[in-house]
Amino acid sequence: IPPQDVRAGAFALLNAAPYFPPGTVHVAVVDPGVGSARRPLALQLDTHFFVGPDNGLFNFPMGAFPIDPSAFAVVHLTNRKFWRRDVSHTFHGRDIFAPVAAHLSLGVPLAELGDVIARNATDVRRVLAATFALPSPKDTRDGAVGEVIHIDRFGNCITNIRAWRVADGQPVIAIAGRRIVGVRQTYAEVERGELLALIGSSGYLEIAVREGNAAQTLGVNVGDEVRVVN
Amino acid sequence: IPPQDVRAGAFALLNAAPYFPPGTVHVAVVDPGVGSARRPLALQLDTHFFVGPDNGLFNFPMGAFPIDPSAFAVVHLTNRKFWRRDVSHTFHGRDIFAPVAAHLSLGVPLAELGDVIARNATDVRRVLAATFALPSPKDTRDGAVGEVIHIDRFGNCITNIRAWRVADGQPVIAIAGRRIVGVRQTYAEVERGELLALIGSSGYLEIAVREGNAAQTLGVNVGDEVRVVN
Amino acid sequence: IPPQDVRAGAFALLNAAPYFPPGTVHVAVVDPGVGSARRPLALQLDTHFFVGPDNGLFNFPMGAFPIDPSAFAVVHLTNRKFWRRDVSHTFHGRDIFAPVAAHLSLGVPLAELGDVIARNATDVRRVLAATFALPSPKDTRDGAVGEVIHIDRFGNCITNIRAWRVADGQPVIAIAGRRIVGVRQTYAEVERGELLALIGSSGYLEIAVREGNAAQTLGVNVGDEVRVVN
Repeated sequence: IPPQDVRAGAFALLNAAPYFPPGTVHVAVVDPGVGSARRPLALQLDTHFFVGPDNGLFNFPMGAFPIDPSAFAVVHLTNRKFWRRDVSHTFHGRDIFAPVAAHLSLGVPLAELGDVIARNATDVRRVLAATFALPSPKDTRDGAVGEVIHIDRFGNCITNIRAWRVADGQPVIAIAGRRIVGVRQTYAEVERGELLALIGSSGYLEIAVREGNAAQTLGVNVGDEVRVVN
Repeated sequence: IPPQDVRAGAFALLNAAPYFPPGTVHVAVVDPGVGSARRPLALQLDTHFFVGPDNGLFNFPMGAFPIDPSAFAVVHLTNRKFWRRDVSHTFHGRDIFAPVAAHLSLGVPLAELGDVIARNATDVRRVLAATFALPSPKDTRDGAVGEVIHIDRFGNCITNIRAWRVADGQPVIAIAGRRIVGVRQTYAEVERGELLALIGSSGYLEIAVREGNAAQTLGVNVGDEVRVVN
Repeated sequence: IPPQDVRAGAFALLNAAPYFPPGTVHVAVVDPGVGSARRPLALQLDTHFFVGPDNGLFNFPMGAFPIDPSAFAVVHLTNRKFWRRDVSHTFHGRDIFAPVAAHLSLGVPLAELGDVIARNATDVRRVLAATFALPSPKDTRDGAVGEVIHIDRFGNCITNIRAWRVADGQPVIAIAGRRIVGVRQTYAEVERGELLALIGSSGYLEIAVREGNAAQTLGVNVGDEVRVVN
């Protein structure tokens, strides 16, 4: 995860967390506000637990879990009994989050870790969205306008446009002044070095270059606009 | 492993796989052709198992295992019972290879995973070599001509010339217009920043710069010629 | 760890090793002198064991353990019974250190691994300091002069000046021609992109840029001077 890139951390969690076994405690620390007023949190999302800072890291992953209203909760970590004795101001991963996660994994109930500030899916969503809201694509007359939300290590540009917004047939994808016609299923359907659009393995529309780096080729950054015309 | 660099993946397997315990299932995914016609495979090489794409990844590692003709096999993965229910077109590591490896590690026989397409070492070699053949050095009157097959993270240039092709005494190694006289045993035998040749820990002739980066110093890439005059 | 950067390896050990459980065997290999006259070592520091080259890697970590004179020892690894059968000249991590550590972890007594060359904390310190002495800051009339000993992946510049040398109140920190007034507790106390000084999570004075890269901003390298005026 690049330094301070909360969004990249959130996207990594979205893609990896659901594939761990039920009961897993995930510790996630991308924490530029460490030691400041941002709260340390522990969450339950369905059968998974998450521990880390209240800065948006856990907003994407929430969308990956089935919503059972009674199996969602957020606790503001305040019970120092489960922390290291000496807590630094700059490394809560070591001093708060890892020890709390260790206790959780040994069976300490979530509610003992601090103050319960959300007890159901609606409230959890509200708490998480307060620090960072995933930008939603906007509907247009014949498609949608979204944006690049992640660039992976291959240079693939993942957008916030989910598969259901992209029609079968020959939609036109516009990005960085380029037009891509049609959505492919595999990279190998185009020539090496050619630009393509496909639905990536997370279920989002993705712009790629076969055996190349789309972000570099297009000069695209996170936040840049992507338009779908169906 | 750099994106799409099948050869670097193969070299990593060659160097690491044999040191794992017998029975290990290795999952290796460098897979630019994911979702296309390239086959998903599971292999047995001696007492080890490998799962991944049919693109040459497993060609180098084969050379690292003792040849017991009856302990080699390749299976074309076709039995979807051992895959994730939903298989994406772009992430077979998650959807095919990892689940198949998990089943293998739990005792599912190789042959249940799909169609057996090779049952002995000769056939396995033929199947693997069809997608990618490791370039062989050529004998010359007084030595051999080979090439750089891998550059490691230190910048050391590993060649495809095995130790037995390099004479004791004072062979001359030519690479990138430079001549190196003699083969050293350790980096410390030359001065800092000096170029040297040695037999690396994989048993191949290697060109290095002590506490430096030989590939950068020489401007050498994978595929560049290396000549030994004994 | 960057290639050949013994000091960075030592700093990583200092920060990580003490948090592992008692009895852990740590294998550390940053080993530019591999195969030369430098000795292979195994150490006991309090309840932890370390295996690796005699080049200073274990000098920083020693400072992290409580000194029980009788629980410190250094062994020069000479008993080939605990090594791989074939020992390369260039990869002792694979051929000596990992196998020795495996045996240690299975209960082989330290003294069986070779020649005991230090039996107490004083002697261990003497042996380790012979290859690499951590530079000590110098006292000045009103503070101290030290240096940058590590730059982490965020670009934070960690110095060899421990917290107790930095007064409360408004000390002035001078580095690379810049003056920083006061020591902060968290990155968030300054604006984004602003330079600050704080006591890092290892207990050393550290120079950082909030959500930025201090080493790049300042053009600072390991070894550069840092001055504290209290």
